[in-house]
Amino acid sequence: MRGEVTDSTRRGDKAGSQENRRFFWVLKGGEVDIINLELIKSISRSSPTRIVLLVIDGLGGLPNPQTGKTELETANTPNLDQLATRGICGLIDPVSPGITPGSAPGHLALFGYDPVSFNIGRGVLEAIGIDFDIQQGDVAARGNFCTVDETGLVTDRRAGRISTEKCAELCQLLDGLVIDEVRLFVCPVKEHRFIVVFRGEGLASEVSDSDPQQIGVAPKVVTALRPEAARMAGITNQFIAQARATLAGHYPANMVLLRGFSQRPQFPTMGEVYKLKPAAIASYPMYRGLAKLVGMEILKTGTSIEDEFATLKQNYANYDFFFLHIKGTDSAGEDGDFDRKVRVIEEVDNTLPSLTSLEPDVIVVTGDHSTPALLKGHSWHPVPILLHSKWCRPDRVSEFSESACVFGGLGRFPATQIIPLAMANALKLNKFGA
Amino acid sequence: MRGEVTDSTRRGDKAGSQENRRFFWVLKGGEVDIINLELIKSISRSSPTRIVLLVIDGLGGLPNPQTGKTELETANTPNLDQLATRGICGLIDPVSPGITPGSAPGHLALFGYDPVSFNIGRGVLEAIGIDFDIQQGDVAARGNFCTVDETGLVTDRRAGRISTEKCAELCQLLDGLVIDEVRLFVCPVKEHRFIVVFRGEGLASEVSDSDPQQIGVAPKVVTALRPEAARMAGITNQFIAQARATLAGHYPANMVLLRGFSQRPQFPTMGEVYKLKPAAIASYPMYRGLAKLVGMEILKTGTSIEDEFATLKQNYANYDFFFLHIKGTDSAGEDGDFDRKVRVIEEVDNTLPSLTSLEPDVIVVTGDHSTPALLKGHSWHPVPILLHSKWCRPDRVSEFSESACVFGGLGRFPATQIIPLAMANALKLNKFGA
Repeated sequence: MRGEVTDSTRRGDKAGSQENRRFFWVLKGGEVDIINLELIKSISRSSPTRIVLLVIDGLGGLPNPQTGKTELETANTPNLDQLATRGICGLIDPVSPGITPGSAPGHLALFGYDPVSFNIGRGVLEAIGIDFDIQQGDVAARGNFCTVDETGLVTDRRAGRISTEKCAELCQLLDGLVIDEVRLFVCPVKEHRFIVVFRGEGLASEVSDSDPQQIGVAPKVVTALRPEAARMAGITNQFIAQARATLAGHYPANMVLLRGFSQRPQFPTMGEVYKLKPAAIASYPMYRGLAKLVGMEILKTGTSIEDEFATLKQNYANYDFFFLHIKGTDSAGEDGDFDRKVRVIEEVDNTLPSLTSLEPDVIVVTGDHSTPALLKGHSWHPVPILLHSKWCRPDRVSEFSESACVFGGLGRFPATQIIPLAMANALKLNKFGA
Repeated sequence: MRGEVTDSTRRGDKAGSQENRRFFWVLKGGEVDIINLELIKSISRSSPTRIVLLVIDGLGGLPNPQTGKTELETANTPNLDQLATRGICGLIDPVSPGITPGSAPGHLALFGYDPVSFNIGRGVLEAIGIDFDIQQGDVAARGNFCTVDETGLVTDRRAGRISTEKCAELCQLLDGLVIDEVRLFVCPVKEHRFIVVFRGEGLASEVSDSDPQQIGVAPKVVTALRPEAARMAGITNQFIAQARATLAGHYPANMVLLRGFSQRPQFPTMGEVYKLKPAAIASYPMYRGLAKLVGMEILKTGTSIEDEFATLKQNYANYDFFFLHIKGTDSAGEDGDFDRKVRVIEEVDNTLPSLTSLEPDVIVVTGDHSTPALLKGHSWHPVPILLHSKWCRPDRVSEFSESACVFGGLGRFPATQIIPLAMANALKLNKFGA
């Protein structure tokens, strides 16, 4: 069904009555069917119950060959285990079995948005990752400083991975240009990586990359992929020419490569779909940015796990949904530091009583993907999940771990179903159909 | 894929050879893809084997806080347990995790029809629920008797919930009208609820509701949502005007509100898709009506569980698929009567040998949704299922219960897959693909 009015939107009598209209969103690249969100929107209702979604980034792991235990199984987690005992457990697939998700798809899935349908362009994602306040209409691109030889052919796509400081210096040289009434922001990300954001009237992002993705060839001329994007292509090519002139003396970073031109997507908000008043607590910009894209309010917080839980407590009265993001587990996993990941998990467990003492109607603890220290990166392994509520049907799992969750009552299921499940347990969903 | 010829229809060589054509059904609101039914149709075959689908309505529950056991776990069910031991168990989601299904979506899913795609309008559903013989071309609407003040504003959408007897009296006053050659049937449902069925040539159901879904405003004028429905809107407004005049002296029930105008949907039948000769045994009209919509024959039966099982025995030779519906579990759950639900389950178990002694090739026992007595209503919790056949791969479950079914070999899966599974176990499905 593609954008049809279905009876499903009509059926949720109470909630759906004002919503008897075509219900889909226009996302980049065309209309996308969002049957599941339609369904949920038609039956969701606002209520005073509260949901806390605690995301322990990269939670899932692989067993240490010496002990046979994963990071989570190694950690001493009496509080999580107690919650698992009283709640119901399972395993989630953020995208689908075998797929290793990046942070964006991982989190979109946790928020209930099919990560294959809901795309975020690379440029926008990078901008979000550095807390750049990207506005509707802006076009963002991911940039690399690169090296070209005297004939203009790319010899190093990363300019020898210049330092972040050097990158910041070079960005300053390019930042603030105005081309054809369009203001350009050029901001450093890390090492050779930067972003360019174009701000002005009537910009379109459908232009090709200048990054040829290989060496020995010249950077590509940017072309419009749709007629409306002709001006954008022209402005971009002017910027690239100016950048080349400005950077001429800065070998090895004497040129730029751009890709992933994109605009901030207009996703349906969690307020619209779920009728929640959601807030995000995250010490890292990327996760705040992702939360903002689905309409969460961002709460100011500190950098420690304790800070984040304190922020939850302070703001507990003002929202009915909290996304609380713990970064340290993923960072430790990426670093291949098994023991540090164990310690971060133990720190979360140790801080957990400040959350449980608030007695949220529903607590969900999970991760956006696995990050086994053994793999030093994100992985495809399903992620343990526990859900605690007065109305869950407890299972026999008494320990929050990968191997115990295999036997959980939630089974193994797609991460996009977590929010409907949490909503149900918070009694925030009407019956579907009579 | 939208109405494309799929390889699934081409591949089922033997069964599918006459069916290499576009294969979808036109449902209200447009064409709906029914990939799953397409696939099954292309490989299903008729055979002498028999399937019995025993639906214990609202079977799933939640544990009694005093005992930690659900209704099903509390009930003494030696026969079901034996069947579980010899069969294979699991948990089903009627719609998807977190979604609480009404009776219609719950049953459509059990019959293999995706309950989000296959919609039944509210008017038709209410008509079915009182055994009104709705015919192709009829338009049915759900009505409320309501109260309006002297200026015509709605002051009570339910007219103080008048008695069912009063409702029947008032319906008699309105029943039998003929407007513009269209015959109107007005029939009581319960308390303030009734149905209107419009019967005549060329009626269309795409008209707006008159029910404003709030008080303090006037009932809405019914308008055509498509040009073809203009006549229907006019007839409806005439009926409403006449009803108002007739009911003027019957305060508080001095007006009507109508909603959910709909026609009997033309679903593909189970005969068409599965090549089954299916029969339904149900003592409640709603379930007979739903069975009729998918092409089952309705067998006359009594009101007790024993009656229903006796009907199965009497008709066993004449059909190859039986849907046997037990209502008492759901009613008890809705009433919050934990013990009564336990007793109904025990009664089913006690009567079960009269079914098993027929030695059906496949027996499936499950529910259309959970109805925990603790929640006094339908719920989102997955429903235990057991499947017994000579060809199932038995698991280690030896007890038919929510907590045991977590460990079942069927896992947790969508209810729409039950019929394919039952068909397979009855050796009624050809190989898919060469």
